[in-house]
Amino acid sequence: MHAVNDERWSSERWQGIATPFLAVDGPTLRRNVARAQALCDDRGLLLRPHVKTHKIIEMARLQMDAGARGLTLATVGEAESFAQAGFDDLFVAYPVLTTRAVADRVQRLLETADVTLGIDSREGVDALVRHGLAAHPRLSVLVEVECGLRRTGAVPEEAGRLAAYAAERGLSVGGVFTFPGQAYAVGAAKSAAADEARALSRAADAFAAEGLQCAIRSGGATPSYEATDTAVVTETRPGVYVFQDAQQVALGTATPDDVALAVIATVVSAPTPDRVVLDAGSKVLAADRPSYVDGHGLLLGVPGARIDRIWEHHGVVDVSGVDAGRVPQVGERVAVVPNHACTAINLADRVQVRGEAESTTWDVAARGKNG
Amino acid sequence: MHAVNDERWSSERWQGIATPFLAVDGPTLRRNVARAQALCDDRGLLLRPHVKTHKIIEMARLQMDAGARGLTLATVGEAESFAQAGFDDLFVAYPVLTTRAVADRVQRLLETADVTLGIDSREGVDALVRHGLAAHPRLSVLVEVECGLRRTGAVPEEAGRLAAYAAERGLSVGGVFTFPGQAYAVGAAKSAAADEARALSRAADAFAAEGLQCAIRSGGATPSYEATDTAVVTETRPGVYVFQDAQQVALGTATPDDVALAVIATVVSAPTPDRVVLDAGSKVLAADRPSYVDGHGLLLGVPGARIDRIWEHHGVVDVSGVDAGRVPQVGERVAVVPNHACTAINLADRVQVRGEAESTTWDVAARGKNG
Repeated sequence: MHAVNDERWSSERWQGIATPFLAVDGPTLRRNVARAQALCDDRGLLLRPHVKTHKIIEMARLQMDAGARGLTLATVGEAESFAQAGFDDLFVAYPVLTTRAVADRVQRLLETADVTLGIDSREGVDALVRHGLAAHPRLSVLVEVECGLRRTGAVPEEAGRLAAYAAERGLSVGGVFTFPGQAYAVGAAKSAAADEARALSRAADAFAAEGLQCAIRSGGATPSYEATDTAVVTETRPGVYVFQDAQQVALGTATPDDVALAVIATVVSAPTPDRVVLDAGSKVLAADRPSYVDGHGLLLGVPGARIDRIWEHHGVVDVSGVDAGRVPQVGERVAVVPNHACTAINLADRVQVRGEAESTTWDVAARGKNG
Repeated sequence: MHAVNDERWSSERWQGIATPFLAVDGPTLRRNVARAQALCDDRGLLLRPHVKTHKIIEMARLQMDAGARGLTLATVGEAESFAQAGFDDLFVAYPVLTTRAVADRVQRLLETADVTLGIDSREGVDALVRHGLAAHPRLSVLVEVECGLRRTGAVPEEAGRLAAYAAERGLSVGGVFTFPGQAYAVGAAKSAAADEARALSRAADAFAAEGLQCAIRSGGATPSYEATDTAVVTETRPGVYVFQDAQQVALGTATPDDVALAVIATVVSAPTPDRVVLDAGSKVLAADRPSYVDGHGLLLGVPGARIDRIWEHHGVVDVSGVDAGRVPQVGERVAVVPNHACTAINLADRVQVRGEAESTTWDVAARGKNG
């Protein structure tokens, strides 16, 4: 009972743990953290990792100890999880639309942390003002602009007017941010980084036209952050780099050896010679499957295998192209790299960690903190 | 701040709850439970609902009170959650491959419940025998056969030999089960039900050839269970019928009025006239998207809208086809029916329930119990 052909994903300690479960390879994780930090340090770029990828306190500590500027979060709920653990520089990179109840929670965050929120509309500004958050000395906002993804974010040319609207109402406006998600396509990293720089530059010009400083120009996504244009961009917010995943391998951002997160699964059935079935499906791997990824996760150590189809608790592996001696047998454990680390983590209460002396499991502290 | 155009998804009590969250409409839920039970009762078919769909103790009680035979579960972990709440007739419809640790957990289940496990291989039988479970008076097994899905399950003609192998080793073999998942295609319900009946019938013949009874012939999936061939099938195991979802609406199994589960989300951004962005993405809706479903969930009350693209915390709605007066505005709450109820539930710690006097929230007790 061991992970096929890959000692990084085997541990004596895991024998009594029922599959499927998420495992983290500590040494690879530390290498990923150190590499990204060194890369940013060398280029004078601040690294503010997006912790929605892992939602784990211990991992955020590793990132801060390595030199990260602060944390990026997707929701106020995630910010609460990390504030409770003592983190005090939190950027919720989202156009938070505060209700009374959410504003009260932000007030409590501000008792122990500097908090930055995203805004992309006057309604967002109005809500902060209405709920008495505008004048708080530890709260600031960044204007979200879009750089080609057509998701949230104002048009860059409008960023100055929105910043002025916020500043006139007492908000501290630190600058702008964008997410170059178009980097999630094969060969698109460099053009996405150029889109990012162009949008942030235009937004900064729009700030200047209103007589406003735009000190923070924040971008970043794992596939493109290495190509960041540091003449424009001051800070980057990649998340997945810390684990890597099958998407990043497909994009060429990472190799399987760079991946620090895998699902440990068991072969539970082998009904025909051309397929085996794993106990890992969409409730552990998640169902993300962009068009550039082949299959529902990367089965390690079994050349020619492909996770063809998944249901909630079944992963059907096509082994018709696998050498007879290499086909995993009923009862064997295997390691599967999820397509998307962020959504796989959000399905787990904890991860098993290999190669860490102090702790064998880490809690996914901010799992499910969507609001 | 209310769900657009749909009073079923509005509640004064929800004002202070941050979006996105999952909501259950109690009256619709009770109607779905009663309807399915009546349908099965009328046809002399036992109903053993699959509770992986909801993972909620209170809902399983509703199903049992209505007349369900017992519960179907996907994992031993789910069985533990329901056994702790007092349920004592549990069928894990999965080829459970017991390790020492899992066998110990099954032993504890057997202290309070009758437990049935699936088997589809000799390895599965051997593991039960090796760990001392074969002779337990409250444990039985059903042989899984496949009926066209090419997932787990023995070929029906092999079911008798596997049953004999198990019986010779002391296991109590109750019969056979199959999952006609090919019903998840438009217009396929009747042919899937016919496939199911054919496979179960052949399996029963194979039992007879070994001189074995095959009293339980269990099938079922929500799209096809109404077409069950009761000349062959004795028990059905639909799950989704209790909530319904956007998949079932697309398949024609349900109408939007039949749906008892929705994500309540807020419009957080409206950057251009042709799109609005919700705070509901793949971490609350899940990423399931079969080819026959249009979009990433069904936005209720906004004719012409389509949830075009999702990220973890963003749902981008194309509103270019929506009448100007009907486009939801920044700050409004809306209701979105997830594509797949089972995977959306598994992302939530609790659901808010409307129209139930005794309780306003239910815990998703078996969330994440994958092993």
